[in-house]
Amino acid sequence: MEIIFLGTSAGLPTKERNTQATVLSLEPLLNEFWLFDAGEAVQHQILQTRIKLGKLRRVFITHMHGDHLFGLPGLLSSRSFQGGENKPLTLYGPAGIKAFIETTLKLSESRLNYPLEIVEVEDAAVFKEDDITIKVHLLAHGIPSYGYRLELPASQGRLLQDKLEKEGIMPGPIYRDFKMHDTVEYEGKVYRAQDYRAEAVPGKILTFFGDTMPNSNEDLLAEQADVMVHESTYLEGDHLLSHQYHHSHIADVVSLAERSQVKLTLINHVSNRYHQQDVTALSEVIRAEHPDFNFRIAHDFMTVKID
Amino acid sequence: MEIIFLGTSAGLPTKERNTQATVLSLEPLLNEFWLFDAGEAVQHQILQTRIKLGKLRRVFITHMHGDHLFGLPGLLSSRSFQGGENKPLTLYGPAGIKAFIETTLKLSESRLNYPLEIVEVEDAAVFKEDDITIKVHLLAHGIPSYGYRLELPASQGRLLQDKLEKEGIMPGPIYRDFKMHDTVEYEGKVYRAQDYRAEAVPGKILTFFGDTMPNSNEDLLAEQADVMVHESTYLEGDHLLSHQYHHSHIADVVSLAERSQVKLTLINHVSNRYHQQDVTALSEVIRAEHPDFNFRIAHDFMTVKID
Repeated sequence: MEIIFLGTSAGLPTKERNTQATVLSLEPLLNEFWLFDAGEAVQHQILQTRIKLGKLRRVFITHMHGDHLFGLPGLLSSRSFQGGENKPLTLYGPAGIKAFIETTLKLSESRLNYPLEIVEVEDAAVFKEDDITIKVHLLAHGIPSYGYRLELPASQGRLLQDKLEKEGIMPGPIYRDFKMHDTVEYEGKVYRAQDYRAEAVPGKILTFFGDTMPNSNEDLLAEQADVMVHESTYLEGDHLLSHQYHHSHIADVVSLAERSQVKLTLINHVSNRYHQQDVTALSEVIRAEHPDFNFRIAHDFMTVKID
Repeated sequence: MEIIFLGTSAGLPTKERNTQATVLSLEPLLNEFWLFDAGEAVQHQILQTRIKLGKLRRVFITHMHGDHLFGLPGLLSSRSFQGGENKPLTLYGPAGIKAFIETTLKLSESRLNYPLEIVEVEDAAVFKEDDITIKVHLLAHGIPSYGYRLELPASQGRLLQDKLEKEGIMPGPIYRDFKMHDTVEYEGKVYRAQDYRAEAVPGKILTFFGDTMPNSNEDLLAEQADVMVHESTYLEGDHLLSHQYHHSHIADVVSLAERSQVKLTLINHVSNRYHQQDVTALSEVIRAEHPDFNFRIAHDFMTVKID
């Protein structure tokens, strides 16, 4: 799996950063891409990558501000011409997302050649898709802003070959039965398959935040996450200023990650006051002050492998 | 004056070409930019130029297809933060443009800090702004698509210094009176100022087409134009195929330019089947076949001075 950042700016595009868009490639679990937010020109950014619009299966909009939203009509329209034909797409977003899409597509006479399902989410909504549990929680941003927590399915533990061989069960097609079934009959004897497998590997928890200032729902989204994608509009300076604008300060993100035992934090939506060299310098400061905080500050096209 | 192409693709953005947007810089006549069409990421393209959003005074949308329209909400929103404060902007477009803007700005909670006037145009509408006459004509594109013909004001002929000196009127502040007034009194004698000026210089005619297949209104827009910006989705091949898709073929554009005595034709909205090297090669073919056809095929950021 991979997370690919297609836009990491705050509010306005800059020469260095596009407006918000983050892709999750679910390969090898699923041969699909999921998109979190769709700032203007997300389709242009995708042209620079190996992401195929036809494989874009789900889009999650965190909130209705333009820098997270205005690329959506173009993305949906272009998908019809770029491998999306007949391939369903599900769009999740706050109340109003349906009216936004219906109005923009209707007035531009854009016709999609694939089924589009639009789901308006609410706080504490839970969806299960392809064995992935999607938990939605409302954040605090002045307008409704949501975070999406994905709990991926556990994967089976590997076969314990040594133990099987001790039973005289040598490698062959029978091993497949030990992977697939609860019980296996072999030469007249019935085996409980789980006794011959290592412990199941828990599914990853990946959590994608919308813009927010600190609030208690954040913990529900972040708890024990393997990867948390979170805004930090302010990377230094006045802590409370960020809250005045309903945004997070780096100190908020560090605190959330620590108390929720997040393994890796990927920071996006950094203020346009910071150029790339500032970000590099500020990263070092943050790392020195919080040596246990495992993080990266995203830039456009940054790709992070999730093993 | 200058025409700056910010997007020249047809339908979808490509790695080489953005969706439609063409800027007219009216300097020195007016210290303003006017924009024709606003495909997605027009604000991103503007970031690469010296165009100031605060000086963007008028936006003309030719038709409601997404590749001419989807950059508008982002452009209008960002203008608030990029020098546009309190500076009025007028938006012209087909019926529906008002609903499109009102819906997208309202649902995204975008608040503009400048007055926005939205004018829904009709066939044969005429506007006069800053001594520029704007004539609107309906084209033929399956959905309402308009062309905008700008007739710039004539400029006064230069002063005939020789003739003034023969009358004993030597260079000095009095010359300003001969430029500014109809009659001038000098040493007790009254002069008719126009007798001491060369003939007025006719104003330029600049005409910007929306997508269209050939139709009679085209002639009203193109007649005697100094510069015509016109689509030619198809630069070669089957002439009638283009009409099936409500678009123009290069043969249509050549014919229109010739019968309307257009001085310079700037071609945009070329099919994405043509890469830049194809365009270069096809330009030579067109030039060989039509040696009197004065044209250029636009690419993104191509800038054409209009003297």
